[in-house]
Amino acid sequence: PHVPYSPPRYPKETMLERSKDFYTLMNQRRSVPIHQHVQFRLLLICTAPSGAHTEPWTFVVVSDAETKHQIRLIVEEEEEVNYRQRMGDKWVHDLAKLRTNWVKEYLDVAPYLVLIFKQTYGILPNGKKKTHYYNEISVSISCGILLAALQNVGLVTVTSTPLNCGPQLRLLLKRPANEKLLMLLPVGYPASDATVPDLKRKPLNEIMVHV
Amino acid sequence: PHVPYSPPRYPKETMLERSKDFYTLMNQRRSVPIHQHVQFRLLLICTAPSGAHTEPWTFVVVSDAETKHQIRLIVEEEEEVNYRQRMGDKWVHDLAKLRTNWVKEYLDVAPYLVLIFKQTYGILPNGKKKTHYYNEISVSISCGILLAALQNVGLVTVTSTPLNCGPQLRLLLKRPANEKLLMLLPVGYPASDATVPDLKRKPLNEIMVHV
Ligand SMILES: Cc1cc2nc3c(=O)[nH]c(=O)nc-3n(C[C@H](O)[C@H](O)[C@H](O)COP(=O)(O)O)c2cc1C
Ligand SMILES: Cc1cc2nc3c(=O)[nH]c(=O)nc-3n(C[C@H](O)[C@H](O)[C@H](O)COP(=O)(O)O)c2cc1C
Repeated sequence: PHVPYSPPRYPKETMLERSKDFYTLMNQRRSVPIHQHVQFRLLLICTAPSGAHTEPWTFVVVSDAETKHQIRLIVEEEEEVNYRQRMGDKWVHDLAKLRTNWVKEYLDVAPYLVLIFKQTYGILPNGKKKTHYYNEISVSISCGILLAALQNVGLVTVTSTPLNCGPQLRLLLKRPANEKLLMLLPVGYPASDATVPDLKRKPLNEIMVHV
Repeated sequence: PHVPYSPPRYPKETMLERSKDFYTLMNQRRSVPIHQHVQFRLLLICTAPSGAHTEPWTFVVVSDAETKHQIRLIVEEEEEVNYRQRMGDKWVHDLAKLRTNWVKEYLDVAPYLVLIFKQTYGILPNGKKKTHYYNEISVSISCGILLAALQNVGLVTVTSTPLNCGPQLRLLLKRPANEKLLMLLPVGYPASDATVPDLKRKPLNEIMVHV
C-alpha cells in the first residue's frame, strides 16, 4: 500500500538560509582524534535509503573498556603489517602528511567505538538467503547521514576502514557470517588542544559541472 | 601543517534536542518521485571525508531539458533489458512492492538530475595515475550527506543506481575515463498528491547492538 507524502515546503529564502546553515555545520566536520569522554546515549540514525529497502546494516556500539582494548590490539596488529608490508611506499607516503600510522591510541580513549557492518545477504523466515542489492553503497550512505547527525550534536569522529581486521573483529563481536565490517567510527569529543591537518577542500567548480 | 580544531560544544540537553530534531528531519526522508519544478541553485555539499583526502567525486547537475531526455532514453533502454532479462524473477518480485519499473518519466520531469561520478583514480601533475583508496565508499558517504542537505531544505529525491547505463551516460556527459557513474538523483519537489510505499523502518534494537 502507498501513503500520501507531503513534506514541509519552505519559501525560497528559508531554503537558502537552511542550506547555508547546513553547509556551515557540515563544513566544520573534520576527521578528529577523540580524547574526552562523553556521557551520552548515542541516538542512532537509521533513516537512510537502501537498495530495495533491505536496510542491510548493523551498528555495534562499543563502550566496554576491555572490548575496546581488544579491538585496538586487533587493529594495531593488522595495521602494522599493512604499513610495513602490504601498502607499499606510495600509500604510506600519501598518508604521512595526515600523520596516520598504526598506533591507534584513540581506540582505547574514545568513549564509543561504532563498528558498522554491512549485511551482504539477509536470512528469510524460511532460512533461505535474501539478496541485499548494493549493500555496501547503502551502508556507506547511512554512514554519511550518521556523520551529519554526529556533527549536528557537536561530536566528532574519524571515518576509518580497518584493512583486513574485519574477520577478527566480527568474531570478537560475535556477529553472524553474513555481516562484514565496513567502517569503524570512534566517537567522542576532541581534546581541547586538538589539531587537524590544514587541508583545503576542492572548490565547487572542481567538483560540480552544470549541464 | 596542523591547525587547532575546537568545534562548538553543546550542553547535554541541547545535544539531545538537536539529535531529536535531526532524527525527525531525516526520518521524514523518503524516496519520492519528483514532479514540480524548483527554481533554485542547488547548493552542493562537498564536506564529506574521503580516503586519504582524495575527494574522488564529480557531481554533474543536469537541468537542460534535451540532456535530461537523452538520459531518460539511455536509462529506460537499459532498465527494460534489466527487468526483462538480467535481473531474474526474484529481483523483479522484490521490486514490485515498491512499484518500480523501467518507465522513468521522472527523468524528464525532475528539474534537476544529479549524476554522481566516482573518480576511480586521479591524474597527478606529472600525468601519472593517483590511486583513490576506497573511492566508492567515500562517494557514497558524500551522497548520504547530500541527502541530508536536500532533506534539510525540503527537496526530495530518489537514490538510484542505473544498472549498466554508466558507460553511455559518461559519454553523453563527456566525463573522462577515470570517472564511473555511481548514482543518479533526480531532485525537486514532490507532486502535491505524491504517495510513497507504506514502508516501516527497522526498530533500533534490530539495527544496533551495544557492547
Ligand atoms: C572510506 C574512508 C576511509 C578512511 N580511512 C581512514 C583510516 O583508516 N585512518 C584515518 O586516520 N583516517 C581515515 N579516513 C579519514 C580521511 O583521511 C579524511 O577524511 C581525509 O583526510 C579528509 O579529512 P577530513 O575528514 O578532516 O575532511 C578515511 C576516510 C574515508 C572516507
Ligand atoms: C544504493 C541504492 C540504490 C537504489 N536504486 C533504486 C532504483 O534504481 N530505483 C528506485 O526506484 N529506487 C532505488 N532506490 C531507493 C530504494 O528503493 C529506497 O531507498 C527503499 O525502498 C527505502 O525507501 P525510502 O528511501 O523511502 O526510505 C535505491 C536506494 C539505494 C540506497
